[in-house]
Amino acid sequence: MSISGAPQAGKVTISDLAHRLGISKASVSYALNGQSGVSEATRARVLALAGELGWYPSSSARALSHSRTDSVGIVLFRDPEQIGAEPFYMSILAGIEGVLGAHDMNLLLRMVDPGAVPDERMRDLAVYERWAGEGRVDGVILFDHVRDDPRPPLLDRFRMPYVRLGAGPDVLPSVRNSNVTVSQAVDAATVVEALRERGHRHIAVVSGPAGLVHEEQKTEHLSSHAASLGMTVVKCRSDYTADDGGTATIAVMAGLVPGSPEFPTAIVYGNDLMAVGGLQALKRLNLSVPGHVSVISWDDSILCRLSSPGLSALSRSVSEFGKNAAQLLLELIAGHEPRNIQARPGVLQARESLGRNLL
Amino acid sequence: MSISGAPQAGKVTISDLAHRLGISKASVSYALNGQSGVSEATRARVLALAGELGWYPSSSARALSHSRTDSVGIVLFRDPEQIGAEPFYMSILAGIEGVLGAHDMNLLLRMVDPGAVPDERMRDLAVYERWAGEGRVDGVILFDHVRDDPRPPLLDRFRMPYVRLGAGPDVLPSVRNSNVTVSQAVDAATVVEALRERGHRHIAVVSGPAGLVHEEQKTEHLSSHAASLGMTVVKCRSDYTADDGGTATIAVMAGLVPGSPEFPTAIVYGNDLMAVGGLQALKRLNLSVPGHVSVISWDDSILCRLSSPGLSALSRSVSEFGKNAAQLLLELIAGHEPRNIQARPGVLQARESLGRNLL
Repeated sequence: MSISGAPQAGKVTISDLAHRLGISKASVSYALNGQSGVSEATRARVLALAGELGWYPSSSARALSHSRTDSVGIVLFRDPEQIGAEPFYMSILAGIEGVLGAHDMNLLLRMVDPGAVPDERMRDLAVYERWAGEGRVDGVILFDHVRDDPRPPLLDRFRMPYVRLGAGPDVLPSVRNSNVTVSQAVDAATVVEALRERGHRHIAVVSGPAGLVHEEQKTEHLSSHAASLGMTVVKCRSDYTADDGGTATIAVMAGLVPGSPEFPTAIVYGNDLMAVGGLQALKRLNLSVPGHVSVISWDDSILCRLSSPGLSALSRSVSEFGKNAAQLLLELIAGHEPRNIQARPGVLQARESLGRNLL
Repeated sequence: MSISGAPQAGKVTISDLAHRLGISKASVSYALNGQSGVSEATRARVLALAGELGWYPSSSARALSHSRTDSVGIVLFRDPEQIGAEPFYMSILAGIEGVLGAHDMNLLLRMVDPGAVPDERMRDLAVYERWAGEGRVDGVILFDHVRDDPRPPLLDRFRMPYVRLGAGPDVLPSVRNSNVTVSQAVDAATVVEALRERGHRHIAVVSGPAGLVHEEQKTEHLSSHAASLGMTVVKCRSDYTADDGGTATIAVMAGLVPGSPEFPTAIVYGNDLMAVGGLQALKRLNLSVPGHVSVISWDDSILCRLSSPGLSALSRSVSEFGKNAAQLLLELIAGHEPRNIQARPGVLQARESLGRNLL
């Protein structure tokens, strides 16, 4: 490839090649498509010139003849401003891109603001329908699963391959559908047992938005595992933002006296942003971390390492989730059997925010 | 649209419509393309059924006939792991997506790891060349401009519209090229004057990677404006990561005694991640912020508000940069005149990390 060569008038066409070589367009086309009807010597000349001038088959023409777009789609159904603040999405996209780029596949990205859709129940479905109808993508990766999620039936109807990222371990692969499953039960047990062995008996859980299946499972497993170990749990629903994580923290802790029976000695947050907001709220309440309250969050993004005190977290290889999902989708697109990959369980990353309960 | 209707065999084709209506494929095609050769009554029946079944023109067929892909491309030329940690990119993508989504345009995203390309000088050019050659995108947005940047000449050669985001104010629009320009001089003056009026006379600058034009301009303007006000500056090059920002901080400050003439009483960082790493390094050096050293960073992402002490920053509306760039690119694609938008200057957001120099 030469970028400093003679300027060319945009894209190189089959006509250009034919004109330069002094042969017919049909001959060029035969040569490029590996068809008979042209001598091997001519074929070699055509291919050499095509390579030199940077000729590529038009993606539109290829898509029409091969029914492949070499593109994978992702729709993030969330307020774009929130997406901009959430390290989870960028990490997972980086993991996905690492695999797609290595296979010369393109990523088609769309963000749909739930507050701006005309009909809440139809959420982001119009994008999938349009992509399928227009033949834009070879498959999609789904995040943020909800109860009675309308996306899988829609995609099934369009015969569109899809991978659910972060599905529960009970979700089975089906026709044109593979899954990266995450066991919230195992991760919840890791967190609860880390708190119990440090002496905590009464904890609080600040969880993400209602309706997200993985978040509901996480909260249920945190509660039931704590109960099975004789611990008590208070729960407060938040929305994954730092601001509301702080508000939820104040709702749970304000007015409670350290040492009293109802005082939670540890707070578990459903994501890192809420935990960082929680740390600030605890400071305003004059509660020291981990002196009065221990804090554990979920994911272990860069926010945890950079916060002060350092945030303990259930550390998950988010970019690996993305890599696995991309790998599964490429397999489906290539016609391989659907299958699930069980994500590696999270590992507790203990930092300053996690202390022994000495009350 | 009905997602619970009778299952359909994938995509609806013109043949399907013709079969259901009992008319020829040619008639359906005439009706859908607004051509004559079909009665108005038949046209109405065809359009009604097409709407009901969710027929869309194939994007490949449309691209061939209209030379439009309804897609915009962005290549991030940086280690994907670093991209995952950098709030700047996700914010700017959110801004871009907000505009593209409202116009039903798709965003094609690619990340290219500089450490993984076969030839460093060719950087990510192969992606642009391929997109242009295959007719994948209608235009691209460029970040992270370098000296003698090879991307604009390549895109000019392919007649591909592009918008430079974050170009210097001296960059003029050209054929098929608009720009969102940022004045590093104005922003640097804002930061230097905020420090001077708080009594600082000797400051340090920890800058991002060599070769990035905006980063070099930023450092030059910080130095020259400080010099014009009788202040002195020490400079240290870093790489935009938190870890190296910490290392650079130690390189600048270690062994210096607060109160001595060579001790910088304030450090300016080229981005938020390096500043957060710097805060941690200063803690290890037993230097208090802002007691011994004030800290100001660049961008004011969510990291600044969440860090402790709160990080003062030159606050820039990063998502607005993205919105402006997307708007300019849509104009170019629609055939409007190229033009520049001058981004609004940054505003100093003072938080705990900025103190008066009382040494």
